[in-house]
Amino acid sequence: MNNWGRWGDDDERGALNLLTPDVVRAAAGTVRDGRVLSLSMPIRGATSNAAAQHVPHLRGRPLPQHFMSVDGADYAAGARAVGGGLRVADDALVVSPHGTTTHMDALCHMWSGDELYNGHPASRVRSYGAARCGIDKALPGVVARGVLLDVPALLGVPRLDAGARIGADTLAACAEPRPGDVAVVRTGWPTAYAEDPDLYWSGQPGLTGDAGRWLAERDVAMVACDNAAISGLNAGQLADEPPEDDLHLTLLWRHGIPIAEMLWLEDLAAAGRRDFLFIAAPLAIEGGTGSPINPLAVL
Amino acid sequence: MNNWGRWGDDDERGALNLLTPDVVRAAAGTVRDGRVLSLSMPIRGATSNAAAQHVPHLRGRPLPQHFMSVDGADYAAGARAVGGGLRVADDALVVSPHGTTTHMDALCHMWSGDELYNGHPASRVRSYGAARCGIDKALPGVVARGVLLDVPALLGVPRLDAGARIGADTLAACAEPRPGDVAVVRTGWPTAYAEDPDLYWSGQPGLTGDAGRWLAERDVAMVACDNAAISGLNAGQLADEPPEDDLHLTLLWRHGIPIAEMLWLEDLAAAGRRDFLFIAAPLAIEGGTGSPINPLAVL
Amino acid sequence: MNNWGRWGDDDERGALNLLTPDVVRAAAGTVRDGRVLSLSMPIRGATSNAAAQHVPHLRGRPLPQHFMSVDGADYAAGARAVGGGLRVADDALVVSPHGTTTHMDALCHMWSGDELYNGHPASRVRSYGAARCGIDKALPGVVARGVLLDVPALLGVPRLDAGARIGADTLAACAEPRPGDVAVVRTGWPTAYAEDPDLYWSGQPGLTGDAGRWLAERDVAMVACDNAAISGLNAGQLADEPPEDDLHLTLLWRHGIPIAEMLWLEDLAAAGRRDFLFIAAPLAIEGGTGSPINPLAVL
Amino acid sequence: MNNWGRWGDDDERGALNLLTPDVVRAAAGTVRDGRVLSLSMPIRGATSNAAAQHVPHLRGRPLPQHFMSVDGADYAAGARAVGGGLRVADDALVVSPHGTTTHMDALCHMWSGDELYNGHPASRVRSYGAARCGIDKALPGVVARGVLLDVPALLGVPRLDAGARIGADTLAACAEPRPGDVAVVRTGWPTAYAEDPDLYWSGQPGLTGDAGRWLAERDVAMVACDNAAISGLNAGQLADEPPEDDLHLTLLWRHGIPIAEMLWLEDLAAAGRRDFLFIAAPLAIEGGTGSPINPLAVL
Repeated sequence: MNNWGRWGDDDERGALNLLTPDVVRAAAGTVRDGRVLSLSMPIRGATSNAAAQHVPHLRGRPLPQHFMSVDGADYAAGARAVGGGLRVADDALVVSPHGTTTHMDALCHMWSGDELYNGHPASRVRSYGAARCGIDKALPGVVARGVLLDVPALLGVPRLDAGARIGADTLAACAEPRPGDVAVVRTGWPTAYAEDPDLYWSGQPGLTGDAGRWLAERDVAMVACDNAAISGLNAGQLADEPPEDDLHLTLLWRHGIPIAEMLWLEDLAAAGRRDFLFIAAPLAIEGGTGSPINPLAVL
Repeated sequence: MNNWGRWGDDDERGALNLLTPDVVRAAAGTVRDGRVLSLSMPIRGATSNAAAQHVPHLRGRPLPQHFMSVDGADYAAGARAVGGGLRVADDALVVSPHGTTTHMDALCHMWSGDELYNGHPASRVRSYGAARCGIDKALPGVVARGVLLDVPALLGVPRLDAGARIGADTLAACAEPRPGDVAVVRTGWPTAYAEDPDLYWSGQPGLTGDAGRWLAERDVAMVACDNAAISGLNAGQLADEPPEDDLHLTLLWRHGIPIAEMLWLEDLAAAGRRDFLFIAAPLAIEGGTGSPINPLAVL
Repeated sequence: MNNWGRWGDDDERGALNLLTPDVVRAAAGTVRDGRVLSLSMPIRGATSNAAAQHVPHLRGRPLPQHFMSVDGADYAAGARAVGGGLRVADDALVVSPHGTTTHMDALCHMWSGDELYNGHPASRVRSYGAARCGIDKALPGVVARGVLLDVPALLGVPRLDAGARIGADTLAACAEPRPGDVAVVRTGWPTAYAEDPDLYWSGQPGLTGDAGRWLAERDVAMVACDNAAISGLNAGQLADEPPEDDLHLTLLWRHGIPIAEMLWLEDLAAAGRRDFLFIAAPLAIEGGTGSPINPLAVL
Repeated sequence: MNNWGRWGDDDERGALNLLTPDVVRAAAGTVRDGRVLSLSMPIRGATSNAAAQHVPHLRGRPLPQHFMSVDGADYAAGARAVGGGLRVADDALVVSPHGTTTHMDALCHMWSGDELYNGHPASRVRSYGAARCGIDKALPGVVARGVLLDVPALLGVPRLDAGARIGADTLAACAEPRPGDVAVVRTGWPTAYAEDPDLYWSGQPGLTGDAGRWLAERDVAMVACDNAAISGLNAGQLADEPPEDDLHLTLLWRHGIPIAEMLWLEDLAAAGRRDFLFIAAPLAIEGGTGSPINPLAVL
């Protein structure tokens, strides 16, 4: 029989094991206003125009493509309705989430050597998908207290510069996450894209290796950020810390802490709330290395 | 500047306008145990094997395809690590949500005549996507009280038969949704697939036109079901009510009530809870006719 | 600099090395009528209807999907023309060629053990594509004398039965290919699909292991057939010869003879020509395991 | 029954009707050396690296994506062979041909007003594909005499500059095509990409409106070029002739002459042959606006 209600063994879930019923219940208790914010950027289809260029993404990555397999224009052009006058619009999405849109990384997304997080063999991550530590193991998903670490607000700037690196002290000055919290770190960088895509691609602000360790020590359940890689990026769009300081290795691989990247945090920052109910419900892609998500903050 | 925090005009949001801060706050108050359930079926990639056949779907629909663009096996075969020993797995998903996986329908998914819900011109639903009533207009998403209407439990059967049609009286005997609730209707039908795909395809149990009107009169914010079309389906996999009783037309088009289909409700039914915090966070697909979702129930 | 004019080392080209200028020149000399036939079946997009079901394919394989990213209906619905009144239609194709449409197999498509054809390491066939023996190594493509081995014509039947297995003697009774020829074997099986898809899926007629060896001994440059696997298929759509008789292993792996499958040979058979100029120009997919093709016969 | 051998009505085939048996037979007679050249650039998959950037394409267009659904690395990592030790590699291609790779345009690709070439209603070009003048109507394909108009050779330069516009006189000085010929025009522009992608994107050399009319008056069956749009492009990657001089309108729409773009002509130029057997076999994509192709020159 199906066992879809029980998605992953605990040893593949890493920090998501921190999301105990007590933690979830407490998170629900942070809801005060009842206002819901999406922390997602739009998924804009790249087809015969260059529209997708107008959404932040890492240069060179395959952009999402959205196709309508039948639409209202077809009826305007004379297509016959389905039985009884019913008209239907249908579509398809092609998406490689990393670097192209708001998404969550599975623990299998990055590692070093032959073993994934927690000693799972990397050789089980094959063309049919990741049999270990895939995004399906993150189900049901993340329901937790979110804590906003608003670095530009701390520093009194609209957004950080491309070269800015956020240390542990700076994070600590923003807020102190509790075990099981989702640390939501704002750099403001996505707003650079609307000004000038080339500015966006000139690098990205991000966390230092120390900052990553500081978050791991706080036993956060997840780290979410509005930049593309948690760490900063250089002008070649690469994280260039030495391996011991690499944020993906520290969070995903060493500590089993899933991450979410390319969030839109401007509305959340404007709302002035530092803690809230945070929700990320990744798609149940069997063996996926991640999933596009529409993270929610319930204030 | 970007205005991604403000996704849709109220006149394209239909019943989602019922999700006021008061309703959301009350929904959060239904969390008692802190247990989180996914109401999603798995997205299983169809590639060179027939695996995808092993997940419920409507016959003839294009199944999701999941591809790994780099994986652990590549390193086992000698691929060089990225700088500093880092290894990465990356992937892509091709998905047409309707009829293939757990998903949410946008209000633009079905209509009759030349106008979508609320008089929006159907001619604005074109190849670039639905400029009116697309799934992006459903953002931030659905955070509401969920009410389980467990029809098999009422009738004392493990699941309904393919020919069963659920009337308003039956729904009323299950539970009475309040304005702003998400009505979650269980038929048990997905369990037929594991027994025999041909049984699953022999038809589907579902709601009558009266049942749809009864739900609309209750001012629900959304209707979610574990069957593929809210309505029943005949052996040709078609809904065969006359247009005035068509469930999609009644809910999406006449009343602006978004729907979610192909949920997995067996675990929720087993949990024995009739109300809970229901969350559906559709992807921000601009102009999408729907979105794959991983709906959550927080008990 | 680019070296696209020189696609593959000879040791990855197998029997295509037989296509010397002399052979090509002689093949061009077979053109007598100047009539051109396509030996391709249509690529029909599977979208929101079940149309793709109406083209022969192996059940369970991901069917081609064809999407219009902008089309004439959009203009009928009011889309603005590009500058100067220009209107454009654009599209995209998603295709997994094996088992879904007329295609050519690269030598890397099948093997046994750790080595591809000619000892090339199978470990070089990775997620980025086949660095050895990919379809790009078959470029420029196949220009050769084609010889039709029309088995139903020999036997005086419109098409072979699902269980029919074609031995070497039968092939020899049809025609005797010369070195560098393309052996085009007709079973008539695709016509079963139009009658009844379930009949098509009940199995497929095809060659015996001996027949494959007989072709290899004749030094053909390629084997093309209208069935899906050169060999016959059982009701489970599987070739069930022992490995030493497996047609893919004999042709692709042991002898380096590329194959083309799922051709449409009915018009060619009706034309009454046994030799002709045969052309197959696979797409230059770097590292591809095959390519959809539109093979031509010039009579 | 199937009628795949008879793809299109003559009134949707335009200049391809010039390819009579006499013309084809004469074309076959141009084969002298028996050497075959591919005129295709490689299709390079864009996945998790930026490799696809290393192949000429129009900026902003969705690049081809190539995925391996099972590969040799999977076996190296422990995947079990299919029955009898057989190992298989399989893949998928996502391709939008215009502007991304060597391709052929169908007559439905561009038009002005409400009618396609020859008065066919543009409203029949819908999401399900072009019911009129699609690439399937170009089947069986192009088998013709090719004539190379090597403009850089005429001018004694390795390639034309981005701003160069080729007039009718220049074409006439290169060669005089005969009715039914394929005019193959070389600018040399693809070599700019290997030097510097930004140089490639700075514009493109191409034909003037007069040159297009001159070709049409010569009754060519097709025009093929190594640039991306037959016409030149400005720095915005746009053709900027007034509508009456637009090359796509003149060739595809006014005269029904299909075109092929983004060919690789360097090897052909080096071969020193001015006429040859030209073959383009577009995929049989029903309703396609074009097709990726691997054009062949048989010398």
